[in-house]
Amino acid sequence: MQAARRLESLDPAGTVFAEFSALALKHGAVNLGQGFPTLPVPKFITDAATDAVKGDGLLHQYTRSEGHVRLAKALSAYYVDKIGRTLDPMSEVVTATGASEAIYSTIQAFINPNDEVILMQPFYDCYPAAVTLAGGKPVMVSLRPPADQPATTSHDWKFDVEEIRRAVKPGVTKMIVINNPHNPIGKVFTREELESIGKLAVEYDLLVLADEVYETLVYDDSVTPFIKFASLPGMFERTITVGSIGKMLGVTGWKIGWALGPPDIIRAIWMVHQYVPFAVVTPLQEAAAVCIEQAISSTYFQDTQKQYTHLRNKFHAHLKATGLTPTLPHGGYFILADTTRVSHVPLENTSSTKAAPTAAGDRRDYRVCKHLTEHALVTAIPPSAFYDAVAGGPLDVPAKLARFAFCKNEKMLDDAGGKLKAYFEKTGKQ
Amino acid sequence: MQAARRLESLDPAGTVFAEFSALALKHGAVNLGQGFPTLPVPKFITDAATDAVKGDGLLHQYTRSEGHVRLAKALSAYYVDKIGRTLDPMSEVVTATGASEAIYSTIQAFINPNDEVILMQPFYDCYPAAVTLAGGKPVMVSLRPPADQPATTSHDWKFDVEEIRRAVKPGVTKMIVINNPHNPIGKVFTREELESIGKLAVEYDLLVLADEVYETLVYDDSVTPFIKFASLPGMFERTITVGSIGKMLGVTGWKIGWALGPPDIIRAIWMVHQYVPFAVVTPLQEAAAVCIEQAISSTYFQDTQKQYTHLRNKFHAHLKATGLTPTLPHGGYFILADTTRVSHVPLENTSSTKAAPTAAGDRRDYRVCKHLTEHALVTAIPPSAFYDAVAGGPLDVPAKLARFAFCKNEKMLDDAGGKLKAYFEKTGKQ
Repeated sequence: MQAARRLESLDPAGTVFAEFSALALKHGAVNLGQGFPTLPVPKFITDAATDAVKGDGLLHQYTRSEGHVRLAKALSAYYVDKIGRTLDPMSEVVTATGASEAIYSTIQAFINPNDEVILMQPFYDCYPAAVTLAGGKPVMVSLRPPADQPATTSHDWKFDVEEIRRAVKPGVTKMIVINNPHNPIGKVFTREELESIGKLAVEYDLLVLADEVYETLVYDDSVTPFIKFASLPGMFERTITVGSIGKMLGVTGWKIGWALGPPDIIRAIWMVHQYVPFAVVTPLQEAAAVCIEQAISSTYFQDTQKQYTHLRNKFHAHLKATGLTPTLPHGGYFILADTTRVSHVPLENTSSTKAAPTAAGDRRDYRVCKHLTEHALVTAIPPSAFYDAVAGGPLDVPAKLARFAFCKNEKMLDDAGGKLKAYFEKTGKQ
Repeated sequence: MQAARRLESLDPAGTVFAEFSALALKHGAVNLGQGFPTLPVPKFITDAATDAVKGDGLLHQYTRSEGHVRLAKALSAYYVDKIGRTLDPMSEVVTATGASEAIYSTIQAFINPNDEVILMQPFYDCYPAAVTLAGGKPVMVSLRPPADQPATTSHDWKFDVEEIRRAVKPGVTKMIVINNPHNPIGKVFTREELESIGKLAVEYDLLVLADEVYETLVYDDSVTPFIKFASLPGMFERTITVGSIGKMLGVTGWKIGWALGPPDIIRAIWMVHQYVPFAVVTPLQEAAAVCIEQAISSTYFQDTQKQYTHLRNKFHAHLKATGLTPTLPHGGYFILADTTRVSHVPLENTSSTKAAPTAAGDRRDYRVCKHLTEHALVTAIPPSAFYDAVAGGPLDVPAKLARFAFCKNEKMLDDAGGKLKAYFEKTGKQ
């Protein structure tokens, strides 16, 4: 049976996460690949979930397709100050099966075949897949580290607004996706940077999909506070804000996310959503609502930010000690590290030519991450998975990098640090 | 902002369920519209859910994208006898955000723009939406009641295999969807009926999407046992079997479903699924697995079937007493009833012509269901929502029908029965 042509645009190997999780399992490596926390879930969260499922009543049945009312109200209350605007819970919020489905349904709702969507690479890998599954064309612009030396902090990665302008085709380009705080870089965009994108969005009448799932994890040493794109003057009307309970409460397995925006945009997203999952898991939407209500009036978000600052600093120090020069991230779950020191793997992408795309397995970062999984027993993700592997694409940047998730308990981080150190001591002696 | 063209194929009002649930709420009517149980959830189910969420560990994080391993194994064990074949849990099962997402991802995986998919009307409303969202074309064939009198049992509804053959365009038709037991009719298809479809599927090389979510609710008076389509000789290789925890355990709010089939088909469905929700809610997949393991070795399925037989018989008797001639369903959650007696609404669809589709609000069954919600305070669903509303379509059949969900506690069913009786006594006297 022949699969539909839209699948031809997808990597037949599936997501990089599935691939490297399987590899980690095979070698018994410490898995710092996929971005899910291994920290204990706080008691107020497990209590809320337990309360929601222990009864025998209607919390086990379908809830409102557009979103469980209590959760929509809690989100509206949470975001009022951050977006600087009252959100109508009944028309300006739609909940989804994770941020993934919110992004997928948004793109299905607005992107026609041959429409173009501007993505910044490195990108979270579901963006281009969602665009091509809708028949649209992802158009890449780049965030770039300094040309002459590894980035020190995530703020050293910059984009060129003129490159974005050149990428826009008036009337063909329909949307730009911005991920803030950024995965995998950890960059928190400044007001100036966001406003430069907003100006282009107005000029060319673009929708802005603002994936802000790491919004609660911005560290004190960030050069800029986190600013929600929809809070910029005039931007609410054209912005779809995506968020996630998985990231906000550290429970990625609940698979609850949302899109926020003006009523006509949310209605269009829901038109798709109603025929994709129809509705989102009721009892955990109830629990999520209870948790947000409690978190707003407690120090949960501040405490979590402190906890993650500690984990980030710890693993940053481990990487530094091994000579895998890390970039300090100002937000999010991830640290990029320069892997030039892994001298067992030559610096070049194998078979890298301008004529043909470089297969994933031939890219240096894939080979480094496989090598480290097999020989150091630590698994990271090769960031070229977040780049467009077209002929002549800028794969030289990710070739030298690996992405480590630090949303892990201290034991795992120390274990990974120790294993990397031991590996380099051993290979250094050879 | 202009929504994508694919949305133009959808009813701008959204699903009929949202519309009539809102109407029921507005009038304080007993809502027998949407098919979710209001019965107490058994303790072994709430216990399994509680156990899954009360810990602070990895059951709160992402699980395997293709499906939580314990659930895939439980499904494999559950289905081995029913499909008559060992299912490999790792390659022949994919879990989804409810049967809805399983159906959606299946159709995205196999239907190209302009491919045709054969649906039997009345159909579950997500089928044509999933087909048109993929750019495909739903082609309707009909299940028909006797021409001269209301159906007595769901077995009285028949299809004509020659009508299906005429609907097939070789090379263009790619799939046929069969819903067994059938929503809204309650029909359980005989082996002969299924085999006649299977023969056509082989002849024209069609995929068969077998939506069997009501498989555990087949009543003893059915003229045929329930037969899984994939169990027919030679059919497994071309069949996608869809099922649902929501229906199997009476917990529609958990939003867990699955597709079963040969590895290449399941892989294609997963290729889409990985970019739609990525994965399904972890703790409730764990709980679902535990429940299936326990249900297999207990009398849960038999007990539930008996419980639903009692509820079906009760509401069937209530309808009969009011003169809303019911069709006894052999499977599922629903009873169709003939509403000719609602004489306040004329028998004809308003503005029904061969020249233009009849708007939903103009159809007799919509007007009857609104009338009964407003005046009898009982809400049913107008079955023309499950018909193609094209010009000249066979809307005369659903014009006389209403769909009542009987998966409700006895109090609700008695209350609805009493209210309908009171309404007809009152209107009979006028």
